[in-house]
Amino acid sequence: MSTKTVSKTELDEFLPDDRAYNFNPGPCVLPETVLKRIRDEFIQFRDSKTSILEVSHRSSQFEDLVAECQQRVRTLLGIPENYHVLLLQGGASLQFSMIPMNIAPGYGVVQVVNSGRWSGKKITELDIQNIDYEVPASSEDSDFDHIPDFDKSMVDPDASYVHICSNETVQGTQWQSLPDTGDVPLVADMSSEIMARTFDVEDFGIFYGGAQKNMGPAGVTLVAIEDELTQRTPDGVPTMLRYDSHIQKDSIYNTPPAFAIYGMNMVLEWVQDHGGVEAMEERAIEKSQTLYDIIDSTDFYEGAAEPDSRSRMNVTFRLPDEKLEQQFLQEAKDKGMIGLSGHRSVGGCRASLYNGLPREAVDALADHMKDFERRNG
Amino acid sequence: MSTKTVSKTELDEFLPDDRAYNFNPGPCVLPETVLKRIRDEFIQFRDSKTSILEVSHRSSQFEDLVAECQQRVRTLLGIPENYHVLLLQGGASLQFSMIPMNIAPGYGVVQVVNSGRWSGKKITELDIQNIDYEVPASSEDSDFDHIPDFDKSMVDPDASYVHICSNETVQGTQWQSLPDTGDVPLVADMSSEIMARTFDVEDFGIFYGGAQKNMGPAGVTLVAIEDELTQRTPDGVPTMLRYDSHIQKDSIYNTPPAFAIYGMNMVLEWVQDHGGVEAMEERAIEKSQTLYDIIDSTDFYEGAAEPDSRSRMNVTFRLPDEKLEQQFLQEAKDKGMIGLSGHRSVGGCRASLYNGLPREAVDALADHMKDFERRNG
Repeated sequence: MSTKTVSKTELDEFLPDDRAYNFNPGPCVLPETVLKRIRDEFIQFRDSKTSILEVSHRSSQFEDLVAECQQRVRTLLGIPENYHVLLLQGGASLQFSMIPMNIAPGYGVVQVVNSGRWSGKKITELDIQNIDYEVPASSEDSDFDHIPDFDKSMVDPDASYVHICSNETVQGTQWQSLPDTGDVPLVADMSSEIMARTFDVEDFGIFYGGAQKNMGPAGVTLVAIEDELTQRTPDGVPTMLRYDSHIQKDSIYNTPPAFAIYGMNMVLEWVQDHGGVEAMEERAIEKSQTLYDIIDSTDFYEGAAEPDSRSRMNVTFRLPDEKLEQQFLQEAKDKGMIGLSGHRSVGGCRASLYNGLPREAVDALADHMKDFERRNG
Repeated sequence: MSTKTVSKTELDEFLPDDRAYNFNPGPCVLPETVLKRIRDEFIQFRDSKTSILEVSHRSSQFEDLVAECQQRVRTLLGIPENYHVLLLQGGASLQFSMIPMNIAPGYGVVQVVNSGRWSGKKITELDIQNIDYEVPASSEDSDFDHIPDFDKSMVDPDASYVHICSNETVQGTQWQSLPDTGDVPLVADMSSEIMARTFDVEDFGIFYGGAQKNMGPAGVTLVAIEDELTQRTPDGVPTMLRYDSHIQKDSIYNTPPAFAIYGMNMVLEWVQDHGGVEAMEERAIEKSQTLYDIIDSTDFYEGAAEPDSRSRMNVTFRLPDEKLEQQFLQEAKDKGMIGLSGHRSVGGCRASLYNGLPREAVDALADHMKDFERRNG
């Protein structure tokens, strides 16, 4: 059954009347046709005679699903054979630790570009694990309102890897072009832009991200890793924290998060049916530009990120004062728009515009912004 | 909405005609009323105006769900206040490593009772992590056909902890009574019996298990840990692998596996509505006894476990030869019974009888066993 067979009428009947426009930063809105399809197929997973919640992870049906999901990732991102595609647990937060455990020891200093909250969390884990690292570029002095300048001349040729967070969900910044690190592996936390941005996989040693933004429900984490890097893992790293053990078992070393993989596979099929990552990227540019155009047309709204670092996924902005912000958020909620508060660490407002967010949600927010300014500006 | 409102007729209409009797060792069959309820509520998670797949993990609706699930665990198992109830990722396999990382260093040798495949996996991780351990009791010499004798006199009073696997899913053995380890913390992998067995929580320092057998869908792991033990964690353990970081954040340190927790909460509600753990234990005894009675009444079927170590969750048995076993399994499948193959490492047959398995599935298997013997015995 293709998602294309779901007509607007069927969807209208399926969706509750009070369904929100969901701007949450993740978990977040998923494509509505995917939700309908999961619901419709829920009780029968393929020909397993069980539901997806009950199917054995050693069954051919489930093994096929995992292989299919991995293949979709490869096709959508153009991942060549010398990279492994893994479906793991623990989110980017566990990757912050797993990556250095596996590829740092004996391979030189880790270089971390510090562009915001998620880069900072990566640095914290290196501190905790007592791993040698340095920060060659940072925008901390300006409260991370931009992606710091970083170029090849700043790469230590003896570094074990260079780490970036390609989109900072909290600050609403995004690398506009991805850096060239030469022979030193580039490792990127792409949690909030993966499957919504085109890039050349071969520029990376590892890229990773939780599914719960552009790819599916929470509970599964995508990790793509160049084969060469998987040889670095030292003795002493536990089985579940080694990339090679998951590679050897095709991401079914132990019981995987079956439903999350199932949901991810279905969202990826939807992405394929809707023009692939290129089309998702275009949509993200258009959706974010609608909001940035409003921000740039007035002094009432102030973008939190410098224009040359703006994120297409998370549009962050402030109003003249906090009281107006609270009023803006409350009125948005009253109109059915949720998840627009800025992260508790920075305040303000944030609209997350992931793949599943329909265009009409952005239009509704744009209308609200204009209307609210008219009444309060 | 209570699960009790689902009538037999509604369920009959809901369930597909070819739904299997699912004897898989996990993921496995779930209560059918729970499946129906998840399907019916799928698109609207409480008053969040989103589905459970889309709700923010920082929303009050989701925080309430996690607290509710933890409280159900406490109520069902009688867990006192000086224990923490955590909902984590990575399965028992990650706990094999996390536990020694957190509570072994500086606290003496680890003692591991070796009763089968899952005990062996625990031992492998201690080997990999180069942690000092010893095996005070083992049934390896008899291919793990019984739970080895182990009593308080074998506990090293200076050990950091004693580890057991209380039910060995592969061999089909189960501790009939749980050991007394005095002042040394007892740590138990209870993956395949938790919520189907009554026990005194205060005998344990830690007990843990994946949800995907008696508690819910795959993707979430229950860990209960005595507060005192959480003070042991040394510096250098990554945030995601420390119990204290998950405790401080009430199991929402980072994005949790939302749907798996949702499913688990609903299965636990079903357990409460159906008499609690005591009733589940009684059902498990009855269901397994039906099969053991057949095994004991003939020489055609041979139980793989010694009678004094038999599991109520996983009934393992052999037929006179492998050809007959294959025929038995194929005919069972033709009659709609799946998941009856023994683990690939031991062969034979295995019927897993978790909480969600209806009584009629066991009766169907019992009929098949008798019928097959009549024709081939």
